[in-house]
Amino acid sequence: MKTTIFLFHPNLETSRVNKELAQAVLNDPNHDVTVRDEYAAYPDGRIDVATEQRLVEDSDRIVLQFPFYWYSSPSLLKLWEDKVLEYGWAYGSTGHAFEGKEIMLAVSAGSGEADYQHDGSHHATMEELLKPFETMADYVGARYLPPFVVYGVGAGIDDDTLATTARRYAQVINEPAK
Amino acid sequence: MKTTIFLFHPNLETSRVNKELAQAVLNDPNHDVTVRDEYAAYPDGRIDVATEQRLVEDSDRIVLQFPFYWYSSPSLLKLWEDKVLEYGWAYGSTGHAFEGKEIMLAVSAGSGEADYQHDGSHHATMEELLKPFETMADYVGARYLPPFVVYGVGAGIDDDTLATTARRYAQVINEPAK
Repeated sequence: MKTTIFLFHPNLETSRVNKELAQAVLNDPNHDVTVRDEYAAYPDGRIDVATEQRLVEDSDRIVLQFPFYWYSSPSLLKLWEDKVLEYGWAYGSTGHAFEGKEIMLAVSAGSGEADYQHDGSHHATMEELLKPFETMADYVGARYLPPFVVYGVGAGIDDDTLATTARRYAQVINEPAK
Repeated sequence: MKTTIFLFHPNLETSRVNKELAQAVLNDPNHDVTVRDEYAAYPDGRIDVATEQRLVEDSDRIVLQFPFYWYSSPSLLKLWEDKVLEYGWAYGSTGHAFEGKEIMLAVSAGSGEADYQHDGSHHATMEELLKPFETMADYVGARYLPPFVVYGVGAGIDDDTLATTARRYAQVINEPAK
């Protein structure tokens, strides 16, 4: 199984969590995973649609990894959807690019898991807030896998917890879907 | 009541529905409404945070108008959230910019209303898909008003229906919240 992590962090160099997650995946020699730093690839925001489509076509599992900003992704991932998921390629009668493929989200969230509950500070669950991505995956005919969510990064994660989380990420990202 | 429509359409000139909606609002002489074409203001995507914050501060009702792209807004609105809604201004102990203000979404959706149901082609309701925006509004302490949604623009709207819809928009946008 070939996996590509499309990583959307506006400043990955200063990131701690997203960088460590990606590194843990790359350190696992047993699997065929590519990590792509999308903000570095497109500092001017001009996405090369053909390149991105080829990367999707070459992958069995597409992981969209990003920090949770205002209950959604950073803007470049939204632009990626709008540009790359073309009619006739991703959807429409000739648009079968995602069929047989899997889409998995990997999200680092500032608040704790208890905050993403109806009685928590955000009054909505992560599953509810990610619904636009799930619906997109459904629409293009991909299989939407359960998201990998790291909660509480705003308050800081201690090194041990982060290391454990990153190892779990490397494992989950390579596991066949149930 | 002072209202600002922050309109996010990547190519408003070629838009039919969003342009007519905005025009209907501007044609109503009885109200204090400003329409701001955000993609025209920032063709390079570099948002002037101070200008946008001032426009919010000067408004009682903030309308975020956009075409529905992949179950969310075009990417510039996401960037607008990430840049403009700063800690200490929009949220945090000193962030009170939106308190006492209203946020209303105005969305043009390609599919029909029946498609945005659990048993429809998108398997999710518009309310569910707009949850990230509702949650954002709640978080910054604004009052989230029911969204104004124009369905079925993908199949084309006839002139009469569009004119009626635009008049209704001008009315709704100026009505005090119930």
